[in-house]
Amino acid sequence: MRILFIGDIVGSMGREQLQSYLPKLKQKYQPQLTIVNGENAAAGKGITEKIYKQFLDWGADILTMGNHTFDKKEIFDFIDDAKKMVRPANLPEGTPGKGIAYVNVNGNEVAIINLQGRTFLPPIDDPFRMADQLVEEASKRTNLIFVDFHAEATSEKLALAWYLDGRISALVGTHTHVQTTDNRILDRGTAYISDVGMTGPYDGIIGTDREAVIKKFLTQLPVRFETVASGKSQLSGVIIDIDVKTGQSTKINRLYFNDEQPFFN
Amino acid sequence: MRILFIGDIVGSMGREQLQSYLPKLKQKYQPQLTIVNGENAAAGKGITEKIYKQFLDWGADILTMGNHTFDKKEIFDFIDDAKKMVRPANLPEGTPGKGIAYVNVNGNEVAIINLQGRTFLPPIDDPFRMADQLVEEASKRTNLIFVDFHAEATSEKLALAWYLDGRISALVGTHTHVQTTDNRILDRGTAYISDVGMTGPYDGIIGTDREAVIKKFLTQLPVRFETVASGKSQLSGVIIDIDVKTGQSTKINRLYFNDEQPFFN
Amino acid sequence: MRILFIGDIVGSMGREQLQSYLPKLKQKYQPQLTIVNGENAAAGKGITEKIYKQFLDWGADILTMGNHTFDKKEIFDFIDDAKKMVRPANLPEGTPGKGIAYVNVNGNEVAIINLQGRTFLPPIDDPFRMADQLVEEASKRTNLIFVDFHAEATSEKLALAWYLDGRISALVGTHTHVQTTDNRILDRGTAYISDVGMTGPYDGIIGTDREAVIKKFLTQLPVRFETVASGKSQLSGVIIDIDVKTGQSTKINRLYFNDEQPFFN
Amino acid sequence: MRILFIGDIVGSMGREQLQSYLPKLKQKYQPQLTIVNGENAAAGKGITEKIYKQFLDWGADILTMGNHTFDKKEIFDFIDDAKKMVRPANLPEGTPGKGIAYVNVNGNEVAIINLQGRTFLPPIDDPFRMADQLVEEASKRTNLIFVDFHAEATSEKLALAWYLDGRISALVGTHTHVQTTDNRILDRGTAYISDVGMTGPYDGIIGTDREAVIKKFLTQLPVRFETVASGKSQLSGVIIDIDVKTGQSTKINRLYFNDEQPFFN
Ligand SMILES: [Fe+2]
Ligand SMILES: [Fe+2]
Ligand SMILES: [Fe+2]
Ligand SMILES: [Fe+2]
Ligand SMILES: [Fe+2]
Ligand SMILES: [Fe+2]
Ligand SMILES: [Fe+2]
Ligand SMILES: [Fe+2]
Repeated sequence: MRILFIGDIVGSMGREQLQSYLPKLKQKYQPQLTIVNGENAAAGKGITEKIYKQFLDWGADILTMGNHTFDKKEIFDFIDDAKKMVRPANLPEGTPGKGIAYVNVNGNEVAIINLQGRTFLPPIDDPFRMADQLVEEASKRTNLIFVDFHAEATSEKLALAWYLDGRISALVGTHTHVQTTDNRILDRGTAYISDVGMTGPYDGIIGTDREAVIKKFLTQLPVRFETVASGKSQLSGVIIDIDVKTGQSTKINRLYFNDEQPFFN
Repeated sequence: MRILFIGDIVGSMGREQLQSYLPKLKQKYQPQLTIVNGENAAAGKGITEKIYKQFLDWGADILTMGNHTFDKKEIFDFIDDAKKMVRPANLPEGTPGKGIAYVNVNGNEVAIINLQGRTFLPPIDDPFRMADQLVEEASKRTNLIFVDFHAEATSEKLALAWYLDGRISALVGTHTHVQTTDNRILDRGTAYISDVGMTGPYDGIIGTDREAVIKKFLTQLPVRFETVASGKSQLSGVIIDIDVKTGQSTKINRLYFNDEQPFFN
Repeated sequence: MRILFIGDIVGSMGREQLQSYLPKLKQKYQPQLTIVNGENAAAGKGITEKIYKQFLDWGADILTMGNHTFDKKEIFDFIDDAKKMVRPANLPEGTPGKGIAYVNVNGNEVAIINLQGRTFLPPIDDPFRMADQLVEEASKRTNLIFVDFHAEATSEKLALAWYLDGRISALVGTHTHVQTTDNRILDRGTAYISDVGMTGPYDGIIGTDREAVIKKFLTQLPVRFETVASGKSQLSGVIIDIDVKTGQSTKINRLYFNDEQPFFN
Repeated sequence: MRILFIGDIVGSMGREQLQSYLPKLKQKYQPQLTIVNGENAAAGKGITEKIYKQFLDWGADILTMGNHTFDKKEIFDFIDDAKKMVRPANLPEGTPGKGIAYVNVNGNEVAIINLQGRTFLPPIDDPFRMADQLVEEASKRTNLIFVDFHAEATSEKLALAWYLDGRISALVGTHTHVQTTDNRILDRGTAYISDVGMTGPYDGIIGTDREAVIKKFLTQLPVRFETVASGKSQLSGVIIDIDVKTGQSTKINRLYFNDEQPFFN
């Protein structure tokens, strides 16, 4: 089974990238399952129901989220009905939405889990123990388990991946908005990359207007951050091939293109 | 001018990688200047005089450091005489060592600057203003200015790079120990990569023994961290081509190999 | 010389406390100089010009600020003309406003300095070195030097106080909004307290609506914080007696009253 | 029922204070239950079995701990047998020791709970939910429930206290090592103080050698911290009166004395 995962869609430029390239990517790579991180889809902070539905229309099968999940208030109105969305599973019990979802892909069930790190991020529940619990639950139904671990520190991402190695098919990191080169298959068959990177503005600072971010670092004054709205774009993703029999991955390749290194189909 | 930069050398395995591959890399890529980050060279924490001299013997022209600079006590005995070493320039005034050095490369002077970020790292002096000051100082002598920005957050690295774009030849990030794919030439000629990545153990967690790091995340108890001492290795670097006339970079390529994706000369 | 310092005025209830009690406190304690921390005066976040002027009208001689100084946008319009206001001196160079002010008290000049800590707070300039510099500058004019050190960690507050002991008349901590019992005269004559505490709502959580803060801790979701607007109040302050000849303090007493432990004049 | 609680005993000077004053305090105040925080008892970091037993010999009925619980390795050898010690209950499942203990006081059972905050401290389990669970458990046995909440931020301490108000007899904060003046009975009968303060050196920085701490702030270099070993001492505590019938507190008074403000019996 081939999975296409596309990293954090940031704002209108990210959405446009997704709409333009998802059909082309699907045609070229022929994934059976397409997963998209949507935590920054609405102006960089959260997501709306309209965007959620657009992503599904454009070809995403399921959305993962992150620390910005609940930034747009309307999320509370639709997340409990959004079957194709997972938010970090290790948010406190009672948080709206869910952290694990199952998708049927040509007769095979795939479990999609979203977790969030705690290093340099808010103190939520332990992602390691929550992973243990959800992986055990999912394993009763399928050996195809995909994890989007939304986290800052490379050490935490590598630690969770090695901890789960052999128990899940793939763990991909998101949140830093910059893709890493360490895509690999770990010793027991888990596909890994520290960060998939983002999709959206190419000339911002992790998608945000440069002037504002630089001003913040220079002055430490309150600054209003806006997502870059025009200019060059980028798209970041990975393609993972999983042996459906064993649940182990055989390949994880990076996808990264932008207006300087364009996509060729 | 071609610069070869090699990312954080971690422990004995990192040192062996450097010793084995630096001659081969030099032969293949013919850099005129070789810069090596040595902040983790001695058992993952700091550096000794012996290692400093070895690195120079093996072909490094200058060493950059980071948040671990002063972890080995003997650094205080030799850093003030270590002409070929820069430590973060924005440490408090009076800190032993220096944050900028000039190297003569075939008659051209190159300024090498080391800075450290403050996001998710200790509060030291402002790297942005220190950069302003050192770049202004260096600019009086040369238009060839190289910066190793040792920092955690992608936003801070991108912000400083864009802030300095056109005023320096290159800014490379270090510290996360995982290489990123965003190497590029910014609009006004500054070569950039968010993180060069590390050199040393391939199967550890950022170079450290996996069991210990996982135990730390699982238990939050005090844990003793050791650098991985045997097994597969990796080497991470970048090669930057700079136009000596303008000081602008024309190319920045990633170097990343390990026992699974070996180096070919 | 007797100084009355009143800790962080929070929102409308804090302002009412100040207006009601400042005349009574002045009558009872007869201070020659009254200093008020105003960083939370406008709805808990920052200050307006109107409030600044009210505080002076009501009897404050000078205002100190903190990490919330610039939360209300209109501060940028008046801070450069606000002669009776100091904001943290160790904000980046170029920040509007000033970090030191001199007040004439019956022919004696008093220097009032505001500094902000960096432990668990944003990375600004080093408060220790900035203190060195400002204390040296002030010492040329007067031996009466008062510091409001706006900081979170008890270790940082104690460290700066002991570091400056004998060079300044008094260092009072602010920011935690809870008064401490460790008011004392240090070995070389500097009056000290780790935190003066806040003035305003008595039944909130550091002045903020309880339900919102508890919800934040329970859910980690985005929550809108509002200052408590009615109910019981408190006022926190200190009274410091300084020997005008030596600049050393002879006494520092706590002031703390609320609707359960009322003020008696 | 009267409870005497004594705040963080720091190093040898703290232990001497406890040994000298506990008998006098007991004689003067006649508490039925004495609780002592021992997280810094062994050279400022953790505790040994010998010290644990000494504290019981000297008159402590039970010890609470904090973020330094496991700093001395030998804790792992005796904590599971240390019936009179509680460590933070919200450490990960499987952590040695326990977070709740029951003590029989003249026929009444008292539950003693230790919890640790997460603001500015390592990410462990949610103290609010763990409190819910333990308070529910304890309530089945007794209405006398005492909580030592070891935490940094005043907001987190106040939030947990108000959250538990009416469900527990008392919540006292520890960890900052500086006593606060906000001791009070909350609306529904829970006794509260943000921080009890420490017991040990009076002239250190939260118990640690001043020169070392100041050097750390000035240089940001690695510094070895030692507990102050001689000089003036202090002792910090609270006395709480609980109505045994209702489990509600009727009074909470501060105890704070040192070589400048000595204890009078
Ligand atoms: Fe994101
Ligand atoms: Fe994120
Ligand atoms: Fe490093
Ligand atoms: Fe580092
Ligand atoms: Fe405040
Ligand atoms: Fe503040
Ligand atoms: Fe402590
Ligand atoms: Fe502590």
